[in-house]
Amino acid sequence: MKWIFVNIMKYKMIIAVRDDLDLSCGKIAAQASHAAVGCAFEAKKSYTNWFKKWQSEGGKKVVVRVEDLDELLDLERVAKSRKLPTYLITDAGLTEIPPETVTCLGIGPAPNELVDPITGELPLLK
Amino acid sequence: MKWIFVNIMKYKMIIAVRDDLDLSCGKIAAQASHAAVGCAFEAKKSYTNWFKKWQSEGGKKVVVRVEDLDELLDLERVAKSRKLPTYLITDAGLTEIPPETVTCLGIGPAPNELVDPITGELPLLK
Repeated sequence: MKWIFVNIMKYKMIIAVRDDLDLSCGKIAAQASHAAVGCAFEAKKSYTNWFKKWQSEGGKKVVVRVEDLDELLDLERVAKSRKLPTYLITDAGLTEIPPETVTCLGIGPAPNELVDPITGELPLLK
Repeated sequence: MKWIFVNIMKYKMIIAVRDDLDLSCGKIAAQASHAAVGCAFEAKKSYTNWFKKWQSEGGKKVVVRVEDLDELLDLERVAKSRKLPTYLITDAGLTEIPPETVTCLGIGPAPNELVDPITGELPLLK
């Protein structure tokens, strides 16, 4: 018998990180974690059905990169206009970057068909 | 008048990532986000007072590295023995690593005086 893996996850959270800040990997991981926690609680409160389904599938998270602040804020604007959960992270700037630097944006969890059209073309963070 | 910044955050979450897997930065960020979300919900449910105080301070997260799986599991054992919130992440392994690979561990949020003795010597993930 041959098993074929089929990805059946229908919900995801996207975390978009600014590429122009040259953050260390540890800093990116911390900022992405801020966004993920922020989005998860926002979704649990205001998008309960999406949140529950996303969690039951394992809580898929995809980390992508955007070129700069303008692209990040554009993405936030579009996601909000489509009524998706969003959470923008502004860093206190105690370590690598100046205070009040916007570093990343969480979108979702939301159904793939709503998230993919606005984030599907963004490159994965490698 | 001269202002002196004093770090008054008394609670933190630690995310410890395995260094031996050579994960990409994006993968680390996603795994750390899983741990952060897992720990945050665990703490909200079972360590409500710590969770609320941590959140009110801004939800500090620190990403550190451990050498390998043994060190990660040792850290989990010690954290559990001290009754701290923990959340171990096992990756589905659909991308960079074999299925069921343990990648990282979240500890906390908890008071610094309980977290620092067991994680304070771990190197920050750069």
